[in-house]
Formats: sequence, structure tokens, C-alpha cells
Amino acid sequence: MKAIGRHIILEMWGCQNLDSVETAEQALRDMVAALDVNLLDLRVYPFSPVGVTGMAIVSESHLVIHTWPEHGYAAVDIFTCGAPRDPQAAVQVLRDLFQPERIGVMEINRGQLDLPEYEVEAPRPRGPSAACRTRAPAYSG
Amino acid sequence: MKAIGRHIILEMWGCQNLDSVETAEQALRDMVAALDVNLLDLRVYPFSPVGVTGMAIVSESHLVIHTWPEHGYAAVDIFTCGAPRDPQAAVQVLRDLFQPERIGVMEINRGQLDLPEYEVEAPRPRGPSAACRTRAPAYSG
Repeated sequence: MKAIGRHIILEMWGCQNLDSVETAEQALRDMVAALDVNLLDLRVYPFSPVGVTGMAIVSESHLVIHTWPEHGYAAVDIFTCGAPRDPQAAVQVLRDLFQPERIGVMEINRGQLDLPEYEVEAPRPRGPSAACRTRAPAYSG
Repeated sequence: MKAIGRHIILEMWGCQNLDSVETAEQALRDMVAALDVNLLDLRVYPFSPVGVTGMAIVSESHLVIHTWPEHGYAAVDIFTCGAPRDPQAAVQVLRDLFQPERIGVMEINRGQLDLPEYEVEAPRPRGPSAACRTRAPAYSG
């Protein structure tokens, strides 16, 4: 199935460390390393009274964590285009840092290219694809 | 159906203005206004040779746009928790600015709370919910 990007949607329940800016930042940095993607920007915002939002913009798309400690819940999105590794490799990072009791995972192909009017290469499993431009940042806003 | 957040996933094809930093920024700002959410941070990154990634962090979660002009394609995610308006209200903004020939929309409930061990209020359609904490930023990183 040819697609521009892969989007992994994680629902994590029964988690630890959900009100920690440090853990959210570590999770994003460790996922970036696990996926071998190119970090452009990383932001973490704590909320009042509890909760954290963390965002990593990478050349290959983005990673986001939102936490709701009052529910033991975290929502994580991993969207990659042309990443050298399987995006599900990031899941072990989340298991280690948040110790969820259970995880739901859904994967969506983004930019499905199996349409007659498109004649492009699908992303190769192990390397950047011709379908994904080199995401060299020309500018950081 | 009780859930912490609503996540709208848009697949837009046959779009215009996909290589414009200004259009991506305008789309994010107009969606923030359309949804009446609280903007914490907005970043737009142009890529070489073409394409843009734009990200708005809001108190109610996040908005992201990734564009691939070479395919006429944009991937947009709208994730809100406790937003006062229906997240699909943002779709008209995207139609106006990117003029897509076709749009695919999927909505996912994030943090589904219909589980026996959780006794919380579902987000109300027209106002912030008790299930969503007030996302007053305690800090901007």
C-alpha cells in the first residue's frame, strides 16, 4: 500500500509520570533517537493544575504527547514520512518511561497514493522514499 | 460517547498554495479563531525543495499541517479537548485557503472514557468539560 506518511496513534492508560515535563521531553528525545529522525524543534508545556503537552517537529513530520494525569491517560501521535525505522519502534520508549498498564495502537496511512492519477514510488521500508522529499529545513520560524 | 478529546484527521488532495509559509500560518491562525481555542505557540517550517510543516499548540491540544505540493496533498490534524466549538468548524478555513478538490475526513475519539472504572463527565458540546482540566499554561518552554 503506497502512502506518503505513516501515522501511529497511541492511547495509553494506567500511566506513570504523566505530570512531568522532564519525562515528556525525555520521551520525545528518546523517540527521535529510536526512529532515527531529524529533530527541528521540541517544545513542552506544563498545564495547570496538571498535565503536559510535548511536541517534536522533525524533518519527517511530527511527534506529539498530551497527558491527563487525572485519568492516567496519555495520547501520543507519531507521524513519519520517510523515516528510516518503523514508527512502532518508538512504542518501547513510551513503555519504559510511562509504564502504561495498557496501550491501544492504531496506524493510519496518510496520503494514500494508490490512485490512478499518481505515479510515484511508495516509501521504502528501510530508507527515505522518492515520494518523500528531503525535508531539509530552509528556515526555522 | 464520552472521550477526553476529539481528533479530526483530514486528507486533502488537489490543493493550492501548499508551498506557502504564509498560507500555512494563516490557516493555523484562522483555525484557532474558528475553533475559539487559546493559542500558545505557532511554528511554520518550509522545506527544501518544497513543502511546509505548520504547528499550533493550543491550550486545548494541537493543530498540525504538513504539505506535499508535489502531490497536491496536505495532511491536517485537529486535536481538541474542551474546545467550545465543533472541530469540524475548522474545515471551512482549509477549503478557503487551500481550495482542495477533495477532502477525506476521519474523526477519532481520543481517551475514550466509557469504561467502568472511570466516572467523569463527558465534554459538553458547547463548553469546556469537567473531564478536561483548564489548560492554563503554567510555563512556556
